[in-house]
Amino acid sequence: MAEAVVRGAGRPRDVTVDAAVLRATQDLLLEQGFDRLSVEGVAARAGVAKATIYRRWPGKTALVVAAVAELYHVPPVPDTGDLREDLLACGRTYVHQGRTQAVLAGLMTAMVHEDELRTAATAAIGGPYTALFHQVISRAVERGEAQPDTDVTSVSEVFPALAFHRGAALGLAVDEQMVVRVVDRLLLPLLR
Amino acid sequence: MAEAVVRGAGRPRDVTVDAAVLRATQDLLLEQGFDRLSVEGVAARAGVAKATIYRRWPGKTALVVAAVAELYHVPPVPDTGDLREDLLACGRTYVHQGRTQAVLAGLMTAMVHEDELRTAATAAIGGPYTALFHQVISRAVERGEAQPDTDVTSVSEVFPALAFHRGAALGLAVDEQMVVRVVDRLLLPLLR
Repeated sequence: MAEAVVRGAGRPRDVTVDAAVLRATQDLLLEQGFDRLSVEGVAARAGVAKATIYRRWPGKTALVVAAVAELYHVPPVPDTGDLREDLLACGRTYVHQGRTQAVLAGLMTAMVHEDELRTAATAAIGGPYTALFHQVISRAVERGEAQPDTDVTSVSEVFPALAFHRGAALGLAVDEQMVVRVVDRLLLPLLR
Repeated sequence: MAEAVVRGAGRPRDVTVDAAVLRATQDLLLEQGFDRLSVEGVAARAGVAKATIYRRWPGKTALVVAAVAELYHVPPVPDTGDLREDLLACGRTYVHQGRTQAVLAGLMTAMVHEDELRTAATAAIGGPYTALFHQVISRAVERGEAQPDTDVTSVSEVFPALAFHRGAALGLAVDEQMVVRVVDRLLLPLLR
């Protein structure tokens, strides 16, 4: 597998290697789960040397978090000009299908008992999604579309918490019906 | 260990045996976790025969759920005459200390990947707490203390979801500060 010859101090340049490693990590997370996944196994699956992986990610936890984050593509902050549409767009970022849903379920399982993974996953994956709500809601307050005394931080946590509870405690996926219900019955009434 | 001689069709009568078995189950859940806990191990720890346990609970999952539920003592529905006080009382049922908090953390870890345990725990432990909020909020609607068009089911899920997210995703315990914040910043504004 080709490697970039010239590399900067920051991100590695060869996206082919990155993609192969992250894909192999996702596959093994699905097949074996977090506990049994090893950097060695990922290297074998991706057809690269272990050292190649360690040059990019410091260890297994960072690798798994990167592999899951790669499936997500957190979108830019929605700005349709309509608060309801913006909130629906934030909520729809939690609607995942097939492979993404399955990889996410594996991550949630492991993060509950792996403190380091939980911390990293919350920062890298949970954080950016909660931040979408935070930015949409702050902007609505600034524009006078939401109550000036809104507790932006508390309201921003409502959807992410309901989505996590639905997935991890109830074993259900977030769907369009839930997105509309939470936006219309909880978020908009809190903001207007 | 003495056993009751006369038993009805329903609950076993000898509460001493029950208490010893549930306590042993809690201890082993803390020491070994759900995966390694066995009915045989509980029997040895409690000093009873395996058959004694199986006469009371159909298997490991039911036993663990009973052992965790036993720590909780879901209180009667609060009715102080003041909606805010009633909601704070519901929220405070999630504030657990020491042993209860540790046993609960072990349960949450296991329930994410054990479908049968998740279903049983949600029904036996999560359900009664969400029902407290549901009853307090429905009653407030009936009494005219809350908006008549309140979506009682959706609002009742907010606190339980935030509490679960805080424990399982963020690794933090529910405390008095969180209870007051959620009631004052989210629940009361949704209801009034």
